[in-house]
Amino acid sequence: MTASTKTSAGNFFEDFQLGQEIRHAIPRTVTTGDVALYTGLTGNRFALPSSDGFARELGLPQAPLDDLLVFHLVFGRTVPDISLNAIANLGYAQGQFGLPVYPGDTLAATSRIIGLKENSNRQTGVVYVRSIGRNQRGAMVVDYVRWVLVRKRDPQSAAPTTVIPDLVASLPATALEVSGGLDLTRFDPAVTGSAHRWEDYEAGERIDHVDGMTIEESCHMTATRLYQNNARVHFNQHAEKDGRFGRRIVYGGHIISLARALSANGLGNALKLLAINGGRHTNPSFAGDTIFAWSEVLAKAELPGVANAGALRLRLVATKNQPAANFPDKAADGNPDPAVVLDFDYWALLPRRG
Amino acid sequence: MTASTKTSAGNFFEDFQLGQEIRHAIPRTVTTGDVALYTGLTGNRFALPSSDGFARELGLPQAPLDDLLVFHLVFGRTVPDISLNAIANLGYAQGQFGLPVYPGDTLAATSRIIGLKENSNRQTGVVYVRSIGRNQRGAMVVDYVRWVLVRKRDPQSAAPTTVIPDLVASLPATALEVSGGLDLTRFDPAVTGSAHRWEDYEAGERIDHVDGMTIEESCHMTATRLYQNNARVHFNQHAEKDGRFGRRIVYGGHIISLARALSANGLGNALKLLAINGGRHTNPSFAGDTIFAWSEVLAKAELPGVANAGALRLRLVATKNQPAANFPDKAADGNPDPAVVLDFDYWALLPRRG
Amino acid sequence: MTASTKTSAGNFFEDFQLGQEIRHAIPRTVTTGDVALYTGLTGNRFALPSSDGFARELGLPQAPLDDLLVFHLVFGRTVPDISLNAIANLGYAQGQFGLPVYPGDTLAATSRIIGLKENSNRQTGVVYVRSIGRNQRGAMVVDYVRWVLVRKRDPQSAAPTTVIPDLVASLPATALEVSGGLDLTRFDPAVTGSAHRWEDYEAGERIDHVDGMTIEESCHMTATRLYQNNARVHFNQHAEKDGRFGRRIVYGGHIISLARALSANGLGNALKLLAINGGRHTNPSFAGDTIFAWSEVLAKAELPGVANAGALRLRLVATKNQPAANFPDKAADGNPDPAVVLDFDYWALLPRRG
Repeated sequence: MTASTKTSAGNFFEDFQLGQEIRHAIPRTVTTGDVALYTGLTGNRFALPSSDGFARELGLPQAPLDDLLVFHLVFGRTVPDISLNAIANLGYAQGQFGLPVYPGDTLAATSRIIGLKENSNRQTGVVYVRSIGRNQRGAMVVDYVRWVLVRKRDPQSAAPTTVIPDLVASLPATALEVSGGLDLTRFDPAVTGSAHRWEDYEAGERIDHVDGMTIEESCHMTATRLYQNNARVHFNQHAEKDGRFGRRIVYGGHIISLARALSANGLGNALKLLAINGGRHTNPSFAGDTIFAWSEVLAKAELPGVANAGALRLRLVATKNQPAANFPDKAADGNPDPAVVLDFDYWALLPRRG
Repeated sequence: MTASTKTSAGNFFEDFQLGQEIRHAIPRTVTTGDVALYTGLTGNRFALPSSDGFARELGLPQAPLDDLLVFHLVFGRTVPDISLNAIANLGYAQGQFGLPVYPGDTLAATSRIIGLKENSNRQTGVVYVRSIGRNQRGAMVVDYVRWVLVRKRDPQSAAPTTVIPDLVASLPATALEVSGGLDLTRFDPAVTGSAHRWEDYEAGERIDHVDGMTIEESCHMTATRLYQNNARVHFNQHAEKDGRFGRRIVYGGHIISLARALSANGLGNALKLLAINGGRHTNPSFAGDTIFAWSEVLAKAELPGVANAGALRLRLVATKNQPAANFPDKAADGNPDPAVVLDFDYWALLPRRG
Repeated sequence: MTASTKTSAGNFFEDFQLGQEIRHAIPRTVTTGDVALYTGLTGNRFALPSSDGFARELGLPQAPLDDLLVFHLVFGRTVPDISLNAIANLGYAQGQFGLPVYPGDTLAATSRIIGLKENSNRQTGVVYVRSIGRNQRGAMVVDYVRWVLVRKRDPQSAAPTTVIPDLVASLPATALEVSGGLDLTRFDPAVTGSAHRWEDYEAGERIDHVDGMTIEESCHMTATRLYQNNARVHFNQHAEKDGRFGRRIVYGGHIISLARALSANGLGNALKLLAINGGRHTNPSFAGDTIFAWSEVLAKAELPGVANAGALRLRLVATKNQPAANFPDKAADGNPDPAVVLDFDYWALLPRRG
């Protein structure tokens, strides 16, 4: 008997080099099957990914995939190389969405290591990665930075020079692009069921999205497998029963999707995500948790070149097992409330009055 | 901080006016992804939605969506306006199926308030609604009446004039239409696996469908989210733990689908639903319940203009946690047996001998 | 009231005749919805069913369905006639995969009874069946033998003459065919993420696939319903609570799919299954079990007519609730280790160096 070394154990902190370029494997053709499953697992009710007719009224050839579904599929490509041994996804920044993605498109991903920092305990380090998803014609569909806490293979190995990339807190509104022919001139609020346009929101406004969604093991695992994200902590109860939490951890991206889906009640005209300014999973979520969400309007921006459209910078906060009517946020010590599981900052596209 | 009022809390009894017309939001493009998920969640084994080849033999361009999948998708459109605050769906009547629906079609829904009745406790009222689902060309695909028990916002508010619509107990056979080019001349029983044709059934006959299907939280929630039905009682365990039953309630339509799927054993040639005469969810169902079903032939009708086809009026009864071999039905007091969860009366299309 | 006899109780051992030909009902049109659900339920990460672009590079018109998805869909056709009353699937042999299957194809199945053997207890018998799945043009897509333990209707009924078919332990490499235009000349390992080609594996080599996947009731039931496999033991907790195990039993095919999906880590270039030499479900699996897998290279074979390709005969062993690092196999008495749930022997296609 020969024991093989062909299995990948994933990369450890020492395996990453500053400036390293990674072409991720397994390009993924996306289909209406993915869309149906995404709707079934998240309860997504936004109109653009739901209706070919609405998409055509707005200048697109058919309903595009939900932006977060695109994000998760690209993210899933990167996991085997970047985060199989990650302890946590620490944050996201500088995310931008490019061309809309349609059923039949094939998504591939590349990444570049843009920062490294060993932690003082020498057990772990932080890897900063910029990942780009492209369609089969090479056009960018999503481009984002994330940083992950990764185990070292050997605590004694030498630390790399610390490089922390300069990340902007928010994409300037001038950098926001509306791609793929999307044109809101013929927007009809009867289609979305929401009368509230860009002009109706004001900075500082908070919206309780009211509803709650309870997570089942089967639901979060199926979503995460759909993205072919194989990070171990989500699937293996035999191992996780002895892990940090005694349970499988829900993929943080599933929480983003649930919170975004809940936000349709109050932000039904936030038609699509333009950019992800930042995001943190402030606490883990588990099967049995019920997710609630609230939003805060952080800023408003005009989109000079885009007819009948404006952008809102929104903060989407998700809680577990605590309704959002009182907008749970930070505890007295400035740290996130233990009920808060997500703090997500993004730019959304909304219709303006004519 | 400004607390927003942009979130919809749903309509209360006072919000409905007799004669009111509602155009529901979020038209839904249906896909083969929806079909796969419907099959996966219900175990549907009827031949027509399963096989393009069989559908073509019977004159259709490809496999149509299962009639109940169409019903649920249209029903899902209506929920945010009609039943977000509903305590219960009390019944269905006068349902008719129109043109077959195919992957790629986009379904939209409108409703008309046709009856109102405040209850004597002044806490709630009954709203009678006629809803029509149409495809992207405006053709009717399903048209049905339901009545729902809805909370009043304020028990002191004035009661509307009571109007109870005149609903027929059963659509007359002469009103039944077979649409979209469906032609049973070339029907082949080897395809359906059932040798029993219209002539082989007799009024009064009862059929135990034998099998049972256990419901999981993940399955009923995924089905209901697929339909974008966001009625709160199905999803939010944090709230429901303190609710009437301490648990999430299964969407009644999921029970109809499970019972219909089970009925393929004994009614494999009940190729499609032509009409829904009535339906009541006589008891709630919960995750962990095992659903059984039996059918009774209520009547037979010829379909003069339709070659090789006849209609059966069927009563489909579903039970929970009790096999149907003894046809559980009414208790001694005339009320439904506590094990009975569904009493559904419909017209089905069956092939006749040449 | 008339109690109907139209329900099928399934076939018992006495109902099978040597040489009997069965045309199974309900041809099944396969779609990208089935593919998405298969990915979501198994975590399948093999490149060929994931990517239209990769498939085209290898000479196919688009991404084919995963071979095991094809197997399960064909197997599902056969269940109502063959194994509704089966106590167990005892084994598989002589499986071959034919033309690739694409979304839009319609699969139908036929079977032939090739062996019968009553057991000495007279309660049960073994039925040997050869089943063939074909696409809408009549081309074979999968052809395999299985044998199942089936209840007798009446222990006193006469036993048939015992006929045990002559089954080969392994298909000879010369019988392996690569169909449908698949051509590995332009194979690119960056697409699969695995650098290991046919030359890199040696007979006797063992590979621990490392990861584990926990099974939920909802996941295995949804997969099995997707295949329209209605064998009762998988779905009905009300009955199974009093059954052999007190629980629903996971469809053995789901275990094969989970183990194959796990094997992508270490066998990422085992692009497709060419043949199933044998397979046994050595122990049942249940919801809550975590499945692990390891592989052994049993043999290597050249494929003379096929450019840049070779075949590996692989043994895929799945365990439950026990990681595979120590390659759990047989207990001291020669019987399978109680943790082993699957012992599966197949030929896989791998790329060779130029």
